[in-house]
Amino acid sequence: MKFIHTADWHLGKIVHGVHMTEDQRHVLWQLIDVIEEEKPDALVIAGDLYDRSVPPTEAVELLDEILLTINVKMKTPIVAISGNHDSAERLSFGSSWYRHSQLYIEGKLSEDLAPVNVGGVNFYCVPYAEPGIVRQVLGDDGIHSHQDAMREITSRIEQNLNPNEPNVFVGHAFVLGGQTSDSERVLSVGGSGCVQANLFDAFDYTALGHLHSPDALKHPKVHYSGSLLKYSFSEAKQNKSLSIVEMNSDGSFDLRYHPLKPLYDLRELEGYMDELLDPHFYQAQQVEDYLKVTLLDDGAVLDPMNRLRQIYPNILHLERKWDLSDNRRKQSFSSIRDEKKSELDLFETFYAEMTERDFDGSKRAVMTSVIEKVKKEEEVK
Amino acid sequence: MKFIHTADWHLGKIVHGVHMTEDQRHVLWQLIDVIEEEKPDALVIAGDLYDRSVPPTEAVELLDEILLTINVKMKTPIVAISGNHDSAERLSFGSSWYRHSQLYIEGKLSEDLAPVNVGGVNFYCVPYAEPGIVRQVLGDDGIHSHQDAMREITSRIEQNLNPNEPNVFVGHAFVLGGQTSDSERVLSVGGSGCVQANLFDAFDYTALGHLHSPDALKHPKVHYSGSLLKYSFSEAKQNKSLSIVEMNSDGSFDLRYHPLKPLYDLRELEGYMDELLDPHFYQAQQVEDYLKVTLLDDGAVLDPMNRLRQIYPNILHLERKWDLSDNRRKQSFSSIRDEKKSELDLFETFYAEMTERDFDGSKRAVMTSVIEKVKKEEEVK
Repeated sequence: MKFIHTADWHLGKIVHGVHMTEDQRHVLWQLIDVIEEEKPDALVIAGDLYDRSVPPTEAVELLDEILLTINVKMKTPIVAISGNHDSAERLSFGSSWYRHSQLYIEGKLSEDLAPVNVGGVNFYCVPYAEPGIVRQVLGDDGIHSHQDAMREITSRIEQNLNPNEPNVFVGHAFVLGGQTSDSERVLSVGGSGCVQANLFDAFDYTALGHLHSPDALKHPKVHYSGSLLKYSFSEAKQNKSLSIVEMNSDGSFDLRYHPLKPLYDLRELEGYMDELLDPHFYQAQQVEDYLKVTLLDDGAVLDPMNRLRQIYPNILHLERKWDLSDNRRKQSFSSIRDEKKSELDLFETFYAEMTERDFDGSKRAVMTSVIEKVKKEEEVK
Repeated sequence: MKFIHTADWHLGKIVHGVHMTEDQRHVLWQLIDVIEEEKPDALVIAGDLYDRSVPPTEAVELLDEILLTINVKMKTPIVAISGNHDSAERLSFGSSWYRHSQLYIEGKLSEDLAPVNVGGVNFYCVPYAEPGIVRQVLGDDGIHSHQDAMREITSRIEQNLNPNEPNVFVGHAFVLGGQTSDSERVLSVGGSGCVQANLFDAFDYTALGHLHSPDALKHPKVHYSGSLLKYSFSEAKQNKSLSIVEMNSDGSFDLRYHPLKPLYDLRELEGYMDELLDPHFYQAQQVEDYLKVTLLDDGAVLDPMNRLRQIYPNILHLERKWDLSDNRRKQSFSSIRDEKKSELDLFETFYAEMTERDFDGSKRAVMTSVIEKVKKEEEVK
């Protein structure tokens, strides 16, 4: 039995002001190609289909298009759960009708933790839910943390689980040991958002969503698929792929990754202004990529964003190297507002902010004469 | 062949700050009872299922509950279109799956104006669309008004229509001759929002939504079902009902109305304060109804809303009879802000606002002495 594991589509996502709909459509059609080629028995989507509870209509239309193609036209069963970015209620709408064609969307957690059987594998689908919701749905006042909630859910499932059949857990959670990136929303403070990987020991494979890298967790049986695309610069070096799982009837499996090729890569670029604007340099670049550019120049640079955008239209973020190199300077810059300083002192601070160089005696002499000249002109007026 | 025609559910509607979800659930379960009893071959919902494009989750859950009961559990085919309050894209989501069980939701207008055949009747489902959208979808630059749009739609349908079968048009429009009420959103100025009833001559029955009264249009073959509930005080005297249509194979039909009983009626109540607070009066009333109260008292009335709410908890609106009787007074009241008037003049204006009585010489004398006394006390301080 073969299934494809994916998660964290985040349809409707806006990255630094750019709508990702076309980028998402581009890789989702790669998913469709892979399904055409691999002919899996099921597609598993482990939460965060949408980026927010009320997604834009373009995202709603894209999800309809993709699910329709895979499920209705290609007749591939789909098992999906809602993640913390989805609205459980909105994603649940219509799910009773979808079951006809083996589209199983578990939007809301229910007390009945029965599995969906597809191709001989039991899929236990557990949508994301806050501990307070799990406490209410399961009627267990002892549930306070995500760890409590998941422990109770998995132990209830284990009571009815048939260990002689292959069992897959589909969940959306921050499993301990995983590495986070900027675009995963902070769930709660102090680690209570985490759950331990050993809770899933009873399952042959655990298909997770939430962390955006397929390498977020090193575990033989518990796996993140990673997100569809790089959704923040902290993900710039991550692999984005589909997990293809071939599962044997004893629950053992073979896992391989199919890389996803984005319409435009999202990456970091570092260099001097002259270098970045040099045709020999940029003609070897994918100039339309989504870029975070770090300028290495230490002097004043005039209008860098507009000049760079002539060549690199999709720069999402621009920063200067020296902004980062000395945090102390920023502090001194903000603190001067509260003090009485001479014009010369103020300029010296400003010069230090803008350059890496010393404000030496000759520069000080020039600046002093300039300031005196200006002051005299003002007195004349 | 029998079908029930309903429209304008407006799930998620808030009337004067009150969420109508439970009121809507109450009458929708009456619809289910009627379906149980009448066993119709189809239910027709002629638009405005939701009150707004992003309905609250309670409304989404209510629609899921009701459609699931009628369509999946009771196996009654449903034909529905979106109205001007619905989001065409959001309501369309999943419609390809719904067709399995004869739930036909036409959210977005498509060029293909093919009917849905249920029980031998052709239902031509035309969702609400702005003229600009119709122009684009049909590729006809001559479409500018709703009349243009509907004329083009109906004439295209007529080209393929089989007049030997019963044909029903399902639409959401302001058909000329209908009477509007406050809760029907104004579509456009100058009558271009209207369409003429004769456009539907080719159809045996036209099932309309948009106007909230089943009596909005007097026409032998073109009918509004009216809304589920009274959604504004301008609808206080309207009938709310389901239209039950028994159609013969030659297209002739019998139409009867099944009244809907609201959880709380929405009505207007007029009286003097003393009368409204008299147990002999209010014990004969449904005090929990949604009320617009008009007070007949002409003197000052202290804190009337709070006192009335002790008896009538669901007053939505309170006004005084004299507020309405003399608009000129309001104008004079607002104009005084711009003028320099003596305290005595200001009080006289106020007295005239608050009562129907003359501010005669003796009253003027009393007020003059009060003002003088206050002024002296202020000088002492």
